[in-house]
Amino acid sequence: MKFESINLKEKYAKFSDYFSPRIIARMNDYLIKLVKFQGEFVWHSHQETDEVFYVFKGEMVIHFRDGQVKLKSGEIFVVPKGVEHKPFAEKECWNMLIEPAGTINTGDAGGDLTAEDEVWI
Amino acid sequence: MKFESINLKEKYAKFSDYFSPRIIARMNDYLIKLVKFQGEFVWHSHQETDEVFYVFKGEMVIHFRDGQVKLKSGEIFVVPKGVEHKPFAEKECWNMLIEPAGTINTGDAGGDLTAEDEVWI
Repeated sequence: MKFESINLKEKYAKFSDYFSPRIIARMNDYLIKLVKFQGEFVWHSHQETDEVFYVFKGEMVIHFRDGQVKLKSGEIFVVPKGVEHKPFAEKECWNMLIEPAGTINTGDAGGDLTAEDEVWI
Repeated sequence: MKFESINLKEKYAKFSDYFSPRIIARMNDYLIKLVKFQGEFVWHSHQETDEVFYVFKGEMVIHFRDGQVKLKSGEIFVVPKGVEHKPFAEKECWNMLIEPAGTINTGDAGGDLTAEDEVWI
């Protein structure tokens, strides 16, 4: 075991590309990931799992087919499994995601924004 | 589904007692909990699960039998399952914990600091 804390700001400083999650920690079968993004992601859902969004910096909106949630720094939302959602940020937003290992960022939608799985930083 | 973000600062403002985790969200079989504490917790381990510590405010030290990790605001550490640890904070520290539902704060140690399970806020 490495007796070393994981500093989120230092980890965020190591990348700048959008919609490309980086893994910073593992807890059992779950991964903690950081992602930066701006603009509109794709509509998608995760049939197998809930997904935690935590905003570290900036603001974002999670659109649903029947509503939306606005999240700012220091706020959390759990998207229930199977529920279609579309993240959006007007300005650059820094997220922390918590989800099971193997969860694909675009879920059942696929497409160009699908990120490589399991990139540690 | 409630289209409402969970604001950590607002949740922390709702309690002041130490070593008594409050649940703010559930993701699959995992709970996200907030806890405030100052001073020394008990040595304990969780035989069944890793445990995520995220420091939202303040600083803390996690003591291990063979080392220690210092965590400040914006930092994470994952205590591996089965590893004995003892959280400590000189001044009041605000933590966010992520662990499976049913995880007891004092693990295998028990004692006076064992908190009631599953208190939502």
